[in-house]
Amino acid sequence: MTKTLILLRHGQSEWNEKNLFTGWVDVRLTEKGRGEAARAGELLAESGLLPDVLHTSVLSRAIQTANVALEAADRMWIPVRRSWRLNERHYGALQGLDKAETLAEYGEEQFMLWRRSFDTPPPELDDSSEWSQADDPRYADIDGERPRTECLKDVIERMIPYWESDIRPDLDAGRIVLVTAHGNSLRALVKHLEGISDEDIAGLNIPTGMPLVYEIGDNGMPLGPGRYLDPEAAAAGAAAVAAQGR
Amino acid sequence: MTKTLILLRHGQSEWNEKNLFTGWVDVRLTEKGRGEAARAGELLAESGLLPDVLHTSVLSRAIQTANVALEAADRMWIPVRRSWRLNERHYGALQGLDKAETLAEYGEEQFMLWRRSFDTPPPELDDSSEWSQADDPRYADIDGERPRTECLKDVIERMIPYWESDIRPDLDAGRIVLVTAHGNSLRALVKHLEGISDEDIAGLNIPTGMPLVYEIGDNGMPLGPGRYLDPEAAAAGAAAVAAQGR
Repeated sequence: MTKTLILLRHGQSEWNEKNLFTGWVDVRLTEKGRGEAARAGELLAESGLLPDVLHTSVLSRAIQTANVALEAADRMWIPVRRSWRLNERHYGALQGLDKAETLAEYGEEQFMLWRRSFDTPPPELDDSSEWSQADDPRYADIDGERPRTECLKDVIERMIPYWESDIRPDLDAGRIVLVTAHGNSLRALVKHLEGISDEDIAGLNIPTGMPLVYEIGDNGMPLGPGRYLDPEAAAAGAAAVAAQGR
Repeated sequence: MTKTLILLRHGQSEWNEKNLFTGWVDVRLTEKGRGEAARAGELLAESGLLPDVLHTSVLSRAIQTANVALEAADRMWIPVRRSWRLNERHYGALQGLDKAETLAEYGEEQFMLWRRSFDTPPPELDDSSEWSQADDPRYADIDGERPRTECLKDVIERMIPYWESDIRPDLDAGRIVLVTAHGNSLRALVKHLEGISDEDIAGLNIPTGMPLVYEIGDNGMPLGPGRYLDPEAAAAGAAAVAAQGR
């Protein structure tokens, strides 16, 4: 039985545009971001890869991306599952800060450590911060687990259980599964699927709005490398992500 | 424990605008319809009635209405459940026909019988019709139950089981439940909730895009009459629905 997994990073958000660290702050898509999402949906329809079920984070920009893409692919009616475990990495005290200013203030080494270190999280975000999620009702049920900062390792540790418990069963049922999520939650999943080392994952950048397709085997691992539905645009997009803050 | 139910009929669709019988044909919202949905979401936010869970039909116009309304109310992240049991009444062989032409051709009595009779369905729609759902993958799992036409009585018989099995448990858990659906699936639910007779239900018209709120008791029945969040606009909207085809 074919098991098809489609990963889709949300399109440009209001804070991508402003070059701010976002993390769990619930900003929305820009018009450009909506356009990227619509194009992603068209690519799915053109490729005949029509999702049977959708998984999203609980952040608006991923949900908007899914809504717009499924509208373009005429698959709005499929079942939807959401989980905070697909959220972007929590950026801790960096949330709300300007990336270029942070780079200028702290220097290249510290900046890249915060952005790409596997196991060093930024300082914790205080619950009293305006960018904290302490009072956000969508996290009321997970208050004990709600992070105040995360490194990529932390993201893997809270994301993989959801992959195993919720996404893999949908694949095992023969469904084409669409996951709309974020740069770092998808890097965490791709690291797992492709067996990328803790060192090499720093060099992986996932472009926005580009469907990335895997055929998954019975053991829950890919049968071959992932493929972008629009490889040229994906390569340009990945380069743009790598250059952020510059 | 307060149990709050919010019913929302989708905004204007492409075929509402053209005055065609729609039923299960999967047309989309017009720009006006999107505006109605956004206004509905604003009304929810202004009233402090923020849904905890969403139930929709599997028709795009109801899903678009929910997506737009929840975006306006900043509640995109709530869990979503969908069911064909919340779909609009299947209009049988009338699907795709012009309402005014149908009125002119068949006369007032037959026209009103088809539109408002409790237990007389229109002729069946043939599976070979371009307006049939015979090949629609969203109904592949219910092929034995998929209707070819329905009267309001039929809608009640397939909708109330979902009310009991899926909507009531969400209310019993203390969640504010939003149901985005259609003129006739919502008439079926309101008939049940308000104990309206088979004769009197013909006179009930539900306006588009107007949140209708019930407080539900432990027995699953309302504690009082339903209230529209914008009563004046709702009354004007209901009159417009009653005048359709004229």
